[in-house]
Amino acid sequence: MRFLILHGPNLNLLGKREPQIYGHSTLKEIDAELQALAAAHNAELRCFQSNFEGALVEAIQQAAEDCDGIVINPAAYGHTSIALRDALLAAQLPTVEVHLSNLAKREPFRRQTLISDVAVGSIVGFGALSYSLALTALLQIATAQSTRSGEQ
Amino acid sequence: MRFLILHGPNLNLLGKREPQIYGHSTLKEIDAELQALAAAHNAELRCFQSNFEGALVEAIQQAAEDCDGIVINPAAYGHTSIALRDALLAAQLPTVEVHLSNLAKREPFRRQTLISDVAVGSIVGFGALSYSLALTALLQIATAQSTRSGEQ
Amino acid sequence: MRFLILHGPNLNLLGKREPQIYGHSTLKEIDAELQALAAAHNAELRCFQSNFEGALVEAIQQAAEDCDGIVINPAAYGHTSIALRDALLAAQLPTVEVHLSNLAKREPFRRQTLISDVAVGSIVGFGALSYSLALTALLQIATAQSTRSGEQ
Amino acid sequence: MRFLILHGPNLNLLGKREPQIYGHSTLKEIDAELQALAAAHNAELRCFQSNFEGALVEAIQQAAEDCDGIVINPAAYGHTSIALRDALLAAQLPTVEVHLSNLAKREPFRRQTLISDVAVGSIVGFGALSYSLALTALLQIATAQSTRSGEQ
Amino acid sequence: MRFLILHGPNLNLLGKREPQIYGHSTLKEIDAELQALAAAHNAELRCFQSNFEGALVEAIQQAAEDCDGIVINPAAYGHTSIALRDALLAAQLPTVEVHLSNLAKREPFRRQTLISDVAVGSIVGFGALSYSLALTALLQIATAQSTRSGEQ
Amino acid sequence: MRFLILHGPNLNLLGKREPQIYGHSTLKEIDAELQALAAAHNAELRCFQSNFEGALVEAIQQAAEDCDGIVINPAAYGHTSIALRDALLAAQLPTVEVHLSNLAKREPFRRQTLISDVAVGSIVGFGALSYSLALTALLQIATAQSTRSGEQ
Amino acid sequence: MRFLILHGPNLNLLGKREPQIYGHSTLKEIDAELQALAAAHNAELRCFQSNFEGALVEAIQQAAEDCDGIVINPAAYGHTSIALRDALLAAQLPTVEVHLSNLAKREPFRRQTLISDVAVGSIVGFGALSYSLALTALLQIATAQSTRSGEQ
Amino acid sequence: MRFLILHGPNLNLLGKREPQIYGHSTLKEIDAELQALAAAHNAELRCFQSNFEGALVEAIQQAAEDCDGIVINPAAYGHTSIALRDALLAAQLPTVEVHLSNLAKREPFRRQTLISDVAVGSIVGFGALSYSLALTALLQIATAQSTRSGEQ
Amino acid sequence: MRFLILHGPNLNLLGKREPQIYGHSTLKEIDAELQALAAAHNAELRCFQSNFEGALVEAIQQAAEDCDGIVINPAAYGHTSIALRDALLAAQLPTVEVHLSNLAKREPFRRQTLISDVAVGSIVGFGALSYSLALTALLQIATAQSTRSGEQ
Amino acid sequence: MRFLILHGPNLNLLGKREPQIYGHSTLKEIDAELQALAAAHNAELRCFQSNFEGALVEAIQQAAEDCDGIVINPAAYGHTSIALRDALLAAQLPTVEVHLSNLAKREPFRRQTLISDVAVGSIVGFGALSYSLALTALLQIATAQSTRSGEQ
Amino acid sequence: MRFLILHGPNLNLLGKREPQIYGHSTLKEIDAELQALAAAHNAELRCFQSNFEGALVEAIQQAAEDCDGIVINPAAYGHTSIALRDALLAAQLPTVEVHLSNLAKREPFRRQTLISDVAVGSIVGFGALSYSLALTALLQIATAQSTRSGEQ
Amino acid sequence: MRFLILHGPNLNLLGKREPQIYGHSTLKEIDAELQALAAAHNAELRCFQSNFEGALVEAIQQAAEDCDGIVINPAAYGHTSIALRDALLAAQLPTVEVHLSNLAKREPFRRQTLISDVAVGSIVGFGALSYSLALTALLQIATAQSTRSGEQ
Repeated sequence: MRFLILHGPNLNLLGKREPQIYGHSTLKEIDAELQALAAAHNAELRCFQSNFEGALVEAIQQAAEDCDGIVINPAAYGHTSIALRDALLAAQLPTVEVHLSNLAKREPFRRQTLISDVAVGSIVGFGALSYSLALTALLQIATAQSTRSGEQ
Repeated sequence: MRFLILHGPNLNLLGKREPQIYGHSTLKEIDAELQALAAAHNAELRCFQSNFEGALVEAIQQAAEDCDGIVINPAAYGHTSIALRDALLAAQLPTVEVHLSNLAKREPFRRQTLISDVAVGSIVGFGALSYSLALTALLQIATAQSTRSGEQ
Repeated sequence: MRFLILHGPNLNLLGKREPQIYGHSTLKEIDAELQALAAAHNAELRCFQSNFEGALVEAIQQAAEDCDGIVINPAAYGHTSIALRDALLAAQLPTVEVHLSNLAKREPFRRQTLISDVAVGSIVGFGALSYSLALTALLQIATAQSTRSGEQ
Repeated sequence: MRFLILHGPNLNLLGKREPQIYGHSTLKEIDAELQALAAAHNAELRCFQSNFEGALVEAIQQAAEDCDGIVINPAAYGHTSIALRDALLAAQLPTVEVHLSNLAKREPFRRQTLISDVAVGSIVGFGALSYSLALTALLQIATAQSTRSGEQ
Repeated sequence: MRFLILHGPNLNLLGKREPQIYGHSTLKEIDAELQALAAAHNAELRCFQSNFEGALVEAIQQAAEDCDGIVINPAAYGHTSIALRDALLAAQLPTVEVHLSNLAKREPFRRQTLISDVAVGSIVGFGALSYSLALTALLQIATAQSTRSGEQ
Repeated sequence: MRFLILHGPNLNLLGKREPQIYGHSTLKEIDAELQALAAAHNAELRCFQSNFEGALVEAIQQAAEDCDGIVINPAAYGHTSIALRDALLAAQLPTVEVHLSNLAKREPFRRQTLISDVAVGSIVGFGALSYSLALTALLQIATAQSTRSGEQ
Repeated sequence: MRFLILHGPNLNLLGKREPQIYGHSTLKEIDAELQALAAAHNAELRCFQSNFEGALVEAIQQAAEDCDGIVINPAAYGHTSIALRDALLAAQLPTVEVHLSNLAKREPFRRQTLISDVAVGSIVGFGALSYSLALTALLQIATAQSTRSGEQ
Repeated sequence: MRFLILHGPNLNLLGKREPQIYGHSTLKEIDAELQALAAAHNAELRCFQSNFEGALVEAIQQAAEDCDGIVINPAAYGHTSIALRDALLAAQLPTVEVHLSNLAKREPFRRQTLISDVAVGSIVGFGALSYSLALTALLQIATAQSTRSGEQ
Repeated sequence: MRFLILHGPNLNLLGKREPQIYGHSTLKEIDAELQALAAAHNAELRCFQSNFEGALVEAIQQAAEDCDGIVINPAAYGHTSIALRDALLAAQLPTVEVHLSNLAKREPFRRQTLISDVAVGSIVGFGALSYSLALTALLQIATAQSTRSGEQ
Repeated sequence: MRFLILHGPNLNLLGKREPQIYGHSTLKEIDAELQALAAAHNAELRCFQSNFEGALVEAIQQAAEDCDGIVINPAAYGHTSIALRDALLAAQLPTVEVHLSNLAKREPFRRQTLISDVAVGSIVGFGALSYSLALTALLQIATAQSTRSGEQ
Repeated sequence: MRFLILHGPNLNLLGKREPQIYGHSTLKEIDAELQALAAAHNAELRCFQSNFEGALVEAIQQAAEDCDGIVINPAAYGHTSIALRDALLAAQLPTVEVHLSNLAKREPFRRQTLISDVAVGSIVGFGALSYSLALTALLQIATAQSTRSGEQ
Repeated sequence: MRFLILHGPNLNLLGKREPQIYGHSTLKEIDAELQALAAAHNAELRCFQSNFEGALVEAIQQAAEDCDGIVINPAAYGHTSIALRDALLAAQLPTVEVHLSNLAKREPFRRQTLISDVAVGSIVGFGALSYSLALTALLQIATAQSTRSGEQ
C-alpha cells in the first residue's frame, strides 16, 4: 500500500519558527517518523510539501493514480482552497485531515475548512503527534477497505 | 480573430473522473470541438488549462495583448480568486463565463462567482455543451464589436 | 417535439423601452426567430407571455401535459415566486432558464433565482441571443433524452 | 356555520403528480371528504383553489362577509405573500393553516410562513389528513366562539 | 396633465375594516377627494385598485403611454413585488410612494420596500392625508418638469 | 399498539398557571382524555412528564423498545435539545410534535424546533386540543404502517 | 399653536453646497416659507438648527414645555442618535420626520432612522417641498388633536 | 495515572442502533478496548456515560479531584452545553474531544462545539477508532506533562 | 418573607477553583452572608445549588408556591435554558439576576441571557458582592410590593 | 475619596416625564441621596449631567485627574458613544455602569452597551435604586483597592 | 496654501495616558512638528482638537471656506459620526484620514470608518508618524491639484 | 539594512492599463524611485513581483532570513490569502501594507485584508505615493528597532 503525506504552505518552516506554537520537530523529522510507522505496516509513503496551491492539487491528482489514501495538512489552504477540495473529490481516496494547532483556539476564519467534509475525519491540535495518529487511522481504514474489496 | 479558451483547476481530469457529473468528453475532445467551431467562423483559438492561479492570471494578461475575447471556465477559482477577476478587469476583453455543472444545485459556496459581474454573461449547467454555446455567443459579440468599431 | 417558451412580467415591453439594457428586438421578433430555429429542428413552439404569476404557473401546468421542455425567462418572478418553482418541480420537464441582462451586475436581490436549481442550466446576460442559445441547448437535451428512452 | 377551505397554487395538481410527496388523493376527493365531515357537524363549506394570489386574497375578503372561519393551505404563497396575510388580518376570522408536506424537511425558505402568526394554529406534514385535522380543530374553535358570544 | 393613482391589494377594504389603523375614509371617498384636488390644478386622474400583481403591473405599463406621473400605494406588494419595481423602472414617470400606516411601527418585513428607491420620494404614516400630500407633491414635480422641457 | 405521550419541562404546571395562555386543563386531565381516545382505538398509552432533559431522552430510548409511536410536546427543550433529537433519530418511531401555544406568535427563539424535521409532522397552537389531534394523527399513521408491514 | 422646526447637522449649509442634491433654497428661505405657511394657519414657529446633538436634544426638551408639535429633519443624527429618539419619546408631541433627499437611493446606513417609529410619519425625498408638506401634515394632526381634547 | 472516559447522551445505544452511522461496537466493548490500552500503559480508566447534563458536569468535577486527563465524547451536549465547558475550564485537566461521526458532514448546528477550544485537540469521524486514538494522544500528553513537572 | 437563592451549575466549586476569576468565598460562605443580611430584614432564605437544569426548574416551581422572590445566578444555564425562563415566567415572582464575573468581558455567547428580560433587573460583575447587592434590591422590591398590596 | 456620578442625555428630565418607566425621583433627589450615602462613608461626590457627548467625555477626563472612581449612567450614549468608552479606557478608574430601566426588555439596539466591558460591572433595571447599589459597590471596590495599594 | 489638522475626541490626552499604545508625543508636540513640516513647504496649518462632534463638524465647514485640504484623525467619531462624513462630503476638499493605532488589531467595531471612502486615502498604525506621512501626502496632492487648475 | 518590496498579482501591469485608476507609473519606475529613496538612507532593497501566491509566500520566507522589513502590496491576495498572512506571522519582520487605490471606495470584498492586523500599519489610496510613504515609515521603524536592540 502507498499513501500520500501532503503538507500545505509554510509547513517547510516547521521546527525553525514559532516552535511554541508548532513544536520543535522539523518537517524532515516528521516525515522520517511517518516513514518508519508506515514501514512497520508494510506501507510506503510519498511525502510532499508545497507553497503552491496548484502543486498541491496536482499531487492529489497524481495520488489518485497510484496511492491508496492521503494524509493532508492543508494549512492555510484548508480555509480558502476549493481547488484542493475538488481535487480530493475527484481522487475519491480515503483522506485524513490533520492540523498541528487547535484551530478552535485561533482566528475565527480558521474555525472551518473546506476539506473536513470530504475527508473521513480530522485530527486537530496535537502538534507532530497529529500526523502519526492520522497515519495510524488511515492505515486501519485502508486495510479495512482493501479487506472488504478482497472479500467480494 | 483569436480567442482564449481558459480552463481552471482540475479540468485536466475531465472525462476521466466523475463522468456522471462532468460528462464523458475529455478536455482534449472539448478543445478540438471548439477549434472546429472557431475554424468554421474563421477564428483562431488558444486553449489553456492550469491548476495554478498565477498561470491563469498570466494567460489572461497575455490574451489582453493578442486576443479578441475569452471563454473562461474558472472552476474552483471562480469562487475564490480576486486575482483572476482583476486580470479580467485589466484585460477589458469580452468574456463569457462557463460552468459544466449547475452551480445552483451544489454547495452554497458555489452559488456565486467573482467572475460573473465582470463577464458579458454566463452559461451554466450544460456540460461540454456549455463551452460551444459560450463560444457561439462570444463569436457573435466580438463580431458585433469589431463591426461597430469598423464603422466608426 | 414541442416546447414552451415562457416570458415573465414586463417582457411584453421588450424593444420598446430601455433598449440600451434589454436590446432592440421586440418579443414578437424574438418569438419569430425562435420559431424559425425550432422549425429547422422539426420542433414546435408555444410562446406565452404574462404579467400574472398565476397565468405563468398554469402555462407550466399545461406544458406538463403536452410539451417536451421549457425555456423560461422568469424575469422578476424568478426572484420571488416559489409558486413558479413548484410548478416546474411538478412538471418534471427539462427546463432552461434565460435572462437577458447579466443579473450579477444588478441589484443584490437579483443575484439568485428560485428557478436555477430546478432547471438543467441557465444562460444569462446575452440579450435576445440568450433565448436562441437556450433553445439550442434544450433541443439537444430533449433529443438526447428521447433517444435514450427510445433505446430502452 | 360556513367555512372557507382555501387551496393555494399548484394544489389543483394533487394526486396527479409527485404522489410520493403529496399523496394519492385528488383535490376533489379531499374536498368531498371535508364536505362530509362538515355536514356531520351541520356546517357548510365553500372550497376554492386558485393559482392567482389576487384571487386568493379576494376569496378571503369574501369569506370575511359570509363565513365563520378559514382552513387555508397557502402552499407557495404562504412563504411570499404579505397580501394574503393582510387579507387574513382584515378578515379577523379564526383561521387554521395547513401544509401537506413537513416544511421543516424541505428547502430553508419553506421553514417559516407569513401566515402562521395570524392563524390560530398550524397543522403540518400529515398529507390529506392535515386537512381533516384542521377542519376538526376549526369546528371546535368556531363552536366555542359562537357559544361564548351566544352566552354574552 | 394626467396622473395614475394606483392602489395595491386589500385597499378596496378601506374604511370598512380596521378603521383604528387605516382610518374611516373609504377608497371611493379618497379617490373623490384626490379628483377634486387634481381638478383644482387642471389635472386629470385615473384611479385604479387591484388585488392582482399582474393587473397593477399592466396599469403602470398603460400609464407609461398616457400619464405624466404616478401616486402608488403598493400596500403588501411594495415589500414583495420586483415586477412592480420593474414596471416603474420601465415607465420612467415621476412616482410618489404612499403608505397609510407608519411602516416603521410594524413588522420588520415592512421596514423597506422595493419601490422607494425608484420613486421620487415617499410619504408614510398619515392615513388618507398621505394621498393628498403625495398628489400635491406630484403636481409640483410634474409641473416643474414640464416647465423645464417647455423652456428647452 | 402502544404509544408514548411525552411532556417536556414545566408542563406539570398546566392548568394551574397562566391559564389564559395554556388553558385550564391540567396535565392529568389531558392524559385522561388521551387515554380514553386511545382506548377507543384499542391502543395503550404511556404518559410521562419530566423537567429533566436526560429523563426525557431515556423515555424515548425506552419507547424505542416497546412502543409504536410518540406524541411529544418538547416544550422549552424543543428549541435547545439536540439530545432529544438524537434520541428520536435513534428510536425511528413515527413521532408527532405538539405545542399548546402558537410558537409563531412568541419570541423569535421559539420559531423553530430541533424536533420538527425528525417528526412526521407538527400540530401547533390549539391548546389541549393539539394533543388529541396529534394522537388521532398518530393512530392513523401507525395503523397504516402496521397494515403495510402486515401485508408484506 | 406653536411648533418647533428642528434642523440637524450640516443643514446650515443648505443652498450653498451641493445644490444638485439638496436644492437651491437656503435654510433661511425655507424657514421663511414655513413661517408664512404657519401664519396662514394662525400658528407660530420656532426654527432652530444645530450641529450639536446635545443642543438638538435640549431644543426638543424645551419644545415639550411650550410647543404643540415638531417637524424634525434629523439629518445625519437620524441614523445614529438614540439620544434624539429618547428626547422625542419624553416629549410626547406629534412629530413629523423630514428628509430632503431620498434615503433609499443613498448609502445602506441611511436606509433606516431611529426617529421614524417614534414619529407620526415621514416625508422623504422632495427637497425643500418636504418641509412644507410636513408642516401641512402637522397642522392637520395638531388641529385634530386639539379639537378632540376640546370636545372632551 | 488515571483518566476519565466520558460519554454523553444516547451513547448508551452504541452498537444497537444506526450501526451504519455509529458502527457495530457497543459502548461496553469500546470501554473494554480502552481499558486494555490504558492497562498497557500502566494507566487506569474510569468510564462513565450519562444522558443527564448535570451528571456529566459532576463527573468532570470529580475528575478534577482524582484524574490526570479526560477523553470526552460530549455527543449532542457538545453543541449546547456551556455548563460542560465551564466544568472543563474549572477542572484544568488535559482533555481530548472525540466524535464518532464526521460532524462536518452533518447538520449545520453540529459544525462547531463549545468544547473544542477548551480541549487540547479533537479527533473526529473515525468511529470507535476515534476513542483509541484519543486515549493514545492523552497518554502521551499526560506523560509529557508529568515528566515536565517531575523535572522541576 | 421568604426568598429563594438559586445557584446554577458549577457554582458548588466557588472559592476552590479559579479564585482569580470568581473570588475566594465559597458558596457556603456566600449563603451564610446572605442569610445574615436576610435575617437583619426579618426575611428567610432558602439556598439551593444544582448542576441539573431540571432540578433548578423544579426549585423555581417550588418557590412559586412558598417564596416572595428569587435571586438567581443561572451561570451557564442563563445562556442556554429556555426551560429556566419558562419556569420563571410561570412563577411570576420578582426575580433578580446575578453574575459573578462581568459577562461583557467574556466569550460572545455569554453576552446575553435568556433570563434578563424576565427578571426585574441584573447585577453583573462584582463577585460575591453581586449577591448581596441583589438581595438588597430584592428586599426593597418585595417590601414595596407587599406594602402596595397591603394598602389595597 | 472622591467619585464622579455621571448622568447622560435626557436624565435631567427624571421624575418629570414618563414616571411609570423611570420613577418619580428627580435627578436632584437622586444626587442628594447619593451624597448622603457617600458622606456616611467619608467620601465625596461630584455629580454631573449633560446632554452633550463631548461634555461627558471631558467630565471623565477631569475625573481621571481628581477622582477615585466613576458611577456612570450613560443613557442613550451607552449604545452609540465610542468616545465615552475611549475616555473611560484612558481614565483607568474603577467604573460602575448603571441603567434605570431593564435594557433587556426594550428595543434590540439597547441590548448591549459600549461601556459594559470597560466597567467593573453593571447594575440594570432597579430605577433610582440602581444608583445607590452602584455607589455601594464602588465604595467597596475603591476601598479594597486603596487598602491593597496602602499595603504595598 | 492652508490646511486644517483636525483631531477628534480624547486626542487632547495624547502623551499623557496609555503611552504604550499612543506614544509619548503630546498633541502640542505633534502640532509643532506638523507646523514645521508645513512651513518648509510654504504652507500654513490650522490645528484644532475637540471632544464635541458638533465642533468638529463646524471646523470642517469653516475649512471649506478657507483651507485647501484636511488631515483628520477622527478618533472614536470615525466609527460613529455620519455628521462628520456629511461635513466632509459638503466641503469637497482633499482629505487624508489618520489613525495612530492599527485599527485592524483592535475591537471589531473599529475595523471600518465612515470617513475612509470620502477621503483620498488613509494612513493607519504608525503613531505620531502617521500625521507627518499624512501631511506629506496632502501637500503633494494639493500641489498637484493647484498645478492642474493653474494650467487650465 | 535590507528590505523586501513585494508586489502581488497583476501589479506587473502597472502604468500600462487602467491608468485612471492605478496611475501612469510603471512598476519599474516605482521600484527605481524606491531604490533611490532607500539608497539615500543607506538601505538596500529587493523588489519582487509575482502572480503566484506560492512565490510570494516563498519571497517572504526568504526575507525572514536576510531582510529587516517588508513593504507589501498584496493586491488581490490581500483579501484571500491566509498563506501570505501565515508567512508574515512566521517572518516576524516589521511590515507595512500598501494599496494604490482606496479600498473603501471599491467592492465590499475589498474592505478588509488578512494582512492589516499582522502589519505595523497600512497606507491606502495614494497611488505610487503610497509606496514611498510606506518605505519612509518602514525606514523609521526599522531604524528605531535596531537602535533599541543596539542599546540593550
